[in-house]
Amino acid sequence: MKVIVIGATGTIGTEVAKALAANKQEVVSASRHGDIKVDLEDVASIRALFDAVRDPDAVVCCAGNAAFKPFADLADADYELGLRSKLMGQVALVRIAKDRLRDAGSITLTAGILAREPIPGSASISLINAGLEGFTRAAALEMPRRVRINVVSPPWVEETLIKLGMDRTIGLAAAKVAKAYVAAVEGTQQGMVLDPRRL
Amino acid sequence: MKVIVIGATGTIGTEVAKALAANKQEVVSASRHGDIKVDLEDVASIRALFDAVRDPDAVVCCAGNAAFKPFADLADADYELGLRSKLMGQVALVRIAKDRLRDAGSITLTAGILAREPIPGSASISLINAGLEGFTRAAALEMPRRVRINVVSPPWVEETLIKLGMDRTIGLAAAKVAKAYVAAVEGTQQGMVLDPRRL
Repeated sequence: MKVIVIGATGTIGTEVAKALAANKQEVVSASRHGDIKVDLEDVASIRALFDAVRDPDAVVCCAGNAAFKPFADLADADYELGLRSKLMGQVALVRIAKDRLRDAGSITLTAGILAREPIPGSASISLINAGLEGFTRAAALEMPRRVRINVVSPPWVEETLIKLGMDRTIGLAAAKVAKAYVAAVEGTQQGMVLDPRRL
Repeated sequence: MKVIVIGATGTIGTEVAKALAANKQEVVSASRHGDIKVDLEDVASIRALFDAVRDPDAVVCCAGNAAFKPFADLADADYELGLRSKLMGQVALVRIAKDRLRDAGSITLTAGILAREPIPGSASISLINAGLEGFTRAAALEMPRRVRINVVSPPWVEETLIKLGMDRTIGLAAAKVAKAYVAAVEGTQQGMVLDPRRL
């Protein structure tokens, strides 16, 4: 399969691209700064991506930003970042990809367990992640040409916790998180929220 | 208790105001076109509401719009309506109300079961409703002064189904839906998603 991985240079995206390649999939890496460019906040760049990469079987999105900040400090711009980037950027990707993938292709998005397991500081991210889960369940009912759509809701990633100087033991290694994406691409799930801790 | 009901002239809001009044609560009805005006899309009008109505114990929101439309037909403006009105309008209400309610006051929002039980046409609304559920669970962890926040996720309302010429038997009467809001205002729940079918 030809699989576009968006955010392929990120902590999770790197492992997703590696795991798909290890399974003999043809991986096309796209990111804001790579050879094949795409920016979720720029709809034209998403369209251009599908003009440049013809007939992909799948697209995986491991990109998108949102603000983590105490509720009292979350400003308009913090909410807007998450809405524009992680939430509506991925919705825009689905709206475009559904008509550009091969028949029975697949779309795999990224939300996060803060959707259902919030912590202080996660109000905006929990909104975004839960919204993506709700959107995915609904959009799956109307995908054309047997296109599938699923969303992975990763827990904290070990590598990120180490970078932040936090307790790594509450996290899951990015390579393990990546398995959920591979399962979504290579499997038959439709409209599912995949939790990498439960694979 | 002094309870502000936003959207008090709507199908659900009317019954919520009636049920709270029947329980001897002091109800202040607010809506886009009533004596006490508020428009969720206009943050200044939300602030003005709390300037006009001093020291409320609770605010209930039964307002907010979003677009129901086949996925292929949902346009940018459809998504934007839901984000601006039902989603971020209620988030704006929480950001303001948390500092304007009496100690241990409460905020009750409206989402909808399409968050977890989607149907064709609900992609945008499912996103909005699920986002509100995720937001509520998270924001509850950071409410100041023992302020509570909960969200009611109503099923289809019988009166609405009749208006739309649809099968009324899949719905719940607005008066029964209202009981979930009363429970949220008069109870001790925090960060909960209330399903009026399960009361």
